[in-house]
Amino acid sequence: MLIIGEKINTVNARVHRAVEERDASYIQHLARSQAEAGADVIDVNVGGLPGAEPELMQWAVGLVQEVTDLPLAIDSTDPETIRAGLAACAHPESAWANSVTLEEERLKGILPLVREYGCTVVALCIDKRGVPSDAAGRVEVAKRLIDEMQRWGIPLERVYIDCLIQPVSVQPIAARVSLETIRAVRAALPGIKTAICLSGISFGLPARRVLNRAFLPPLMEAGVDAIFLDPLDHALMTVLRASRVLFGEDLLGLEYIAAYRAGQLE
Amino acid sequence: MLIIGEKINTVNARVHRAVEERDASYIQHLARSQAEAGADVIDVNVGGLPGAEPELMQWAVGLVQEVTDLPLAIDSTDPETIRAGLAACAHPESAWANSVTLEEERLKGILPLVREYGCTVVALCIDKRGVPSDAAGRVEVAKRLIDEMQRWGIPLERVYIDCLIQPVSVQPIAARVSLETIRAVRAALPGIKTAICLSGISFGLPARRVLNRAFLPPLMEAGVDAIFLDPLDHALMTVLRASRVLFGEDLLGLEYIAAYRAGQLE
Repeated sequence: MLIIGEKINTVNARVHRAVEERDASYIQHLARSQAEAGADVIDVNVGGLPGAEPELMQWAVGLVQEVTDLPLAIDSTDPETIRAGLAACAHPESAWANSVTLEEERLKGILPLVREYGCTVVALCIDKRGVPSDAAGRVEVAKRLIDEMQRWGIPLERVYIDCLIQPVSVQPIAARVSLETIRAVRAALPGIKTAICLSGISFGLPARRVLNRAFLPPLMEAGVDAIFLDPLDHALMTVLRASRVLFGEDLLGLEYIAAYRAGQLE
Repeated sequence: MLIIGEKINTVNARVHRAVEERDASYIQHLARSQAEAGADVIDVNVGGLPGAEPELMQWAVGLVQEVTDLPLAIDSTDPETIRAGLAACAHPESAWANSVTLEEERLKGILPLVREYGCTVVALCIDKRGVPSDAAGRVEVAKRLIDEMQRWGIPLERVYIDCLIQPVSVQPIAARVSLETIRAVRAALPGIKTAICLSGISFGLPARRVLNRAFLPPLMEAGVDAIFLDPLDHALMTVLRASRVLFGEDLLGLEYIAAYRAGQLE
């Protein structure tokens, strides 16, 4: 399972300020520390600021690439920003376009870029009516997303279906719906990869990281292929190491034992 | 979901010594602290010591009852010890006999006691050939256990099927087999309750509590009705509080928020 480090996102007030002030060192610190903590991909989102998002994305992508060779997820709802981010990547074919939905405008804006750059794409189970409330509805959207990918000539091994998480504070069965969606997409679309953004589950509740940590093992049991999470939460990464032992990604616990000996499970 | 506090067990060296030395205060300390930490039932196991297990059980049951009114799980493979423990209970009808298997001798020895005292019984998915390696085999044993319960006139609402956990260090798919067994027993035997002993998963690996904590949320998602665990592991109980929010036992997180405000999630 891949870890997408979610820290470089202007939804966070500290990151917002750093981007606003063009604080290169803080952005690079976040990139470097997430890479060191075990991220496989670094997400970059510079939305919500006055000024041109495409230029900000180019700036941020340039900075991150100076300190890590990891693939980047160019995270925006705006096709021009995704184009700018991909264009700024030294290796755009290893980048991720994050994200499309089944909304016509985003498909038309982003899928040609995915084809042009040969990159990976995250597709959210959202259509013009919004997020389906149950797993069956989300799988229906996932199937139509896959149809669109084929129509646009996107190789399906480059597609991650984001199964979506709603806050359990708003929707008490949200955790079960997400797990059911992951399982149902895997069953209905064999070979298609799934993704999820962990921290969505805890929105609106205190001690959010405690809930996020508890939700990670069931997601891994359900077989999700990529998770957007905070790799700088050491306790979360410890839960992840344990879950890899439990669910077949670390046979006989060899990596777990090595981490224990290195004092990384404390 | 019920929590059965597992701490009073002579498999633990400190408890073994306490029983050997008839250290009443340590046993009572374990009973009291588990009750305070949120246990619903207190397990008592005094096996493996030289001398008469039935008398030791009577002694331990007496001590525990002095400090808590919680139901006790009389934990032994020996029918005479279970009889002695039930006889020592002030309210044997609320006690648990832990445990029977499909082995003839244990059924014949223990089920009459369960009927006589009107207590709850834990039935392990084990027959004379041992522990089935897959979920289908365990469900088969579970069905035969339920047949035996009916044959002996035991009300099925007093039965917990222990779905068993093998160490992931020995059997890499052990976690998935246990989860699948819980789901399959629930599907095949609607209304029959399930139980599991959490710490079995981590035997043979270092930092066992880290693995136990990661395995708790998937067990709760699978719908297990009772878990034998260590309620004195504060971090584990925090995972449990979070899992209750995620999986429908704490709607809207009201208890979680109260625990947060009381500083119990730290």
